[in-house]
Amino acid sequence: MAKSEKINFSTPSGFPEFLPGEKRLEVYLLDTIRRVFESYGFTPIETPAVERLEVLQAKGNQGDNIIYGINPILPPNRQAEKEKAGESGSEARALKFDQTVPLAAYIARHLNDLNFPFARYQMDVVFRGERAKDGRFRQFRQCDIDVVGRRELSLLYDAQMPAIITEIFTAINIGDFLIRINNRKILTGFFQSVGIEESKIKSCIGIIDNLEKIGEAKVKQELEKEGISPEQTQKIIEFVNIKGTVDDMLDKLKHLAQIMPEAEQFNLGVTELEAVITGVRNLGVPENRFCIDLSIARGLDYYTGTVYETTLLGHEALGSICSGGRYEELVGVFLGEKMPGVGISIGLTRLMSRLIKAGILNTLAPTPAQVMVVNLQTELMPLYLKVSQDLRKAGINVITSFDKRGLGKQFQLADKQGIQFCVIIGADEAAAQKSSLKDLKTGEQVEVGLANLAEEVKQRLVPKG
Amino acid sequence: MAKSEKINFSTPSGFPEFLPGEKRLEVYLLDTIRRVFESYGFTPIETPAVERLEVLQAKGNQGDNIIYGINPILPPNRQAEKEKAGESGSEARALKFDQTVPLAAYIARHLNDLNFPFARYQMDVVFRGERAKDGRFRQFRQCDIDVVGRRELSLLYDAQMPAIITEIFTAINIGDFLIRINNRKILTGFFQSVGIEESKIKSCIGIIDNLEKIGEAKVKQELEKEGISPEQTQKIIEFVNIKGTVDDMLDKLKHLAQIMPEAEQFNLGVTELEAVITGVRNLGVPENRFCIDLSIARGLDYYTGTVYETTLLGHEALGSICSGGRYEELVGVFLGEKMPGVGISIGLTRLMSRLIKAGILNTLAPTPAQVMVVNLQTELMPLYLKVSQDLRKAGINVITSFDKRGLGKQFQLADKQGIQFCVIIGADEAAAQKSSLKDLKTGEQVEVGLANLAEEVKQRLVPKG
Repeated sequence: MAKSEKINFSTPSGFPEFLPGEKRLEVYLLDTIRRVFESYGFTPIETPAVERLEVLQAKGNQGDNIIYGINPILPPNRQAEKEKAGESGSEARALKFDQTVPLAAYIARHLNDLNFPFARYQMDVVFRGERAKDGRFRQFRQCDIDVVGRRELSLLYDAQMPAIITEIFTAINIGDFLIRINNRKILTGFFQSVGIEESKIKSCIGIIDNLEKIGEAKVKQELEKEGISPEQTQKIIEFVNIKGTVDDMLDKLKHLAQIMPEAEQFNLGVTELEAVITGVRNLGVPENRFCIDLSIARGLDYYTGTVYETTLLGHEALGSICSGGRYEELVGVFLGEKMPGVGISIGLTRLMSRLIKAGILNTLAPTPAQVMVVNLQTELMPLYLKVSQDLRKAGINVITSFDKRGLGKQFQLADKQGIQFCVIIGADEAAAQKSSLKDLKTGEQVEVGLANLAEEVKQRLVPKG
Repeated sequence: MAKSEKINFSTPSGFPEFLPGEKRLEVYLLDTIRRVFESYGFTPIETPAVERLEVLQAKGNQGDNIIYGINPILPPNRQAEKEKAGESGSEARALKFDQTVPLAAYIARHLNDLNFPFARYQMDVVFRGERAKDGRFRQFRQCDIDVVGRRELSLLYDAQMPAIITEIFTAINIGDFLIRINNRKILTGFFQSVGIEESKIKSCIGIIDNLEKIGEAKVKQELEKEGISPEQTQKIIEFVNIKGTVDDMLDKLKHLAQIMPEAEQFNLGVTELEAVITGVRNLGVPENRFCIDLSIARGLDYYTGTVYETTLLGHEALGSICSGGRYEELVGVFLGEKMPGVGISIGLTRLMSRLIKAGILNTLAPTPAQVMVVNLQTELMPLYLKVSQDLRKAGINVITSFDKRGLGKQFQLADKQGIQFCVIIGADEAAAQKSSLKDLKTGEQVEVGLANLAEEVKQRLVPKG
């Protein structure tokens, strides 16, 4: 068979693909995340990869993102159809770049078939035409949850988010993390109170959001560019740098609120933040897992209340590993209805690839098989097949070897794939309805009756990596 | 908030999306299929949605399919970058239209990191620009497995496929089905033996593949158009119509093979078919689940040996619900190496949507939650949150109601979502560390101590639909 000449079969730049052991890790993470999401009653949805361009671009939805339009390519033998209606290429369509705009469209499409508050999770891949560098991908999977209400939505939904974040990152066991909570109304209100014009507040919040990334000096410069006075800047910097325990912070904020009774936004933000913190505590989130951080702003300008970021302690350079917040005017965009929502997002593809690189997560074995029934004598194959099926019926993942090479080679192949056990049956053993069970991890080999084999394997199985 | 004017927020034609109860059914089916695949040691992979166009079109890979190219669309505020390298649009890329070409590319990309025989499953969505009608989608999910060998691959891998098909369709409980097995070498060899030219055999097999769909008269016409004589056509029709039990069929085929010793392909096909059937039986597949059907050909011309189709009995109009076969020259296309493989595919999106319409599958409840802790007195919220967390820790999916309306409305909302239990706690119950557990299915309400609540719920839970 001739090799196809000159075909570049590598993946297009920025479109990642995983080896089996990496993909198995992703599947494990997705299962774990899903289990936590579902335990809070979030239900799965999936929106198409493709939406109408006008949906993706409505009301500036596209933001700064480069998105991918799609256009039909006819096969060589169907070029004659180009002008026909085979695939009406007339409507502009593009790949989704996030899951928030599609959520808004989904709710608009199915309004009367959904129950509110509508709590959904979505773990689809999304597409952005960014420069493929620094662990940025053009296709990546996001694990998002949002609860959306009609007209109003309890702040206790905001309080559930840190509980969910805590359970997920505890379950996947990546070390100590800290959820940093703030409320955009507090920032907006404080900016108002120091006399910053309404029209500049969103961009100022965007600048503050970069404080940790670009440092104080650069933030001061950028605020100056926005026309903020040095005195105002000083007050802002001092304010967002207030540190302390959760209770200290709440006390300080409540004190400020008291001495600024006219600062409505600020007062409302403090009240909201306190209600959220109370809920977080009532949900049993450990005190060392969350804090109030007034410098957390979230760049996206649709957030209106609670905002969250999550830092992996000792690995701050990773950036936030789970972020989100409360918004008012996002989901109702297609319906012209106020639909407040609160949500969080884990950028799983990026997170996983960075946690693997940092040695925090290990890839799994390349196969889910736990047992290989080896091929010692081909004439015993009917028995090997039967034994394999019996193990499978007991819930064990089994590869039956059809390899004609010696046992050594078969053991080697099993070991390379991370299979823990080999089952060896020769003619004598077959006659006696027995097998040798070899543990490739310890080298130990024991004789086990075929009737007890599944039970024996289950007892000896080390949870499969 | 003003309604966005004139935005058509419906899904683009042919791009389906499911309501939560449908998506939950898909998740359940995917979990079930995955469990069976993994029990045979198939390991998950996922290739990017986007490949280089030259990969998708290599060696006529595109076939008859209309595929979707992608092109970057800059946001309004970044139009100036159009000519810059922000997103190098220079290389032509398109969305994958199946998972076989990407499998070939994946193996070429990671040859030295994979273990052979390489057994992988893949359950990604693929894209085809077909007319959106008759339950055909432009985006759909396929569940594929393939085993690929280097140079050779045991026929026992072919034998495993019907065992896997049987386990999946038995587990998802959709009624009686029949796996129809054939071998392309038998057809090719028979066509040779009646004197049909080599160059016409593939197209003749393609015509025979349509026998069930278009009927005998139409098949005769089409064969005539190919220049096949009425005598040859007669012999072909008679041959593919041979019916009988598996053993009858094997006897007839072996008899034909004996009297046509010079028909090498035919003889080889019969030998392969018999080996596969023996394996299928040794794997314990019930006799009523498979047959030999000489009219099964599979239209795709890359199949070279075993082929399968699966018919849902009583619902023949659905077409094959799981198909596949053996191929030799497909996967090695980028490497110029012979890599024989065998695989099957379930077109899940289409299958599920048709099985729902036919009343064979029921959608699930719209939420995974099994319990709603209702909001009777808001001052007891700390207790409601704690009780909810205790239930979640016991593995139960819980929605805590933050609803301020009366209990009736809350029960109604729980019931609409298919939640089985409501937990009701008033001040007296709180003081006594008790709750009322209301079963919305039966209307029964029992008093349960909070310490025993999780256990009680678990015992009473009906497996969640």
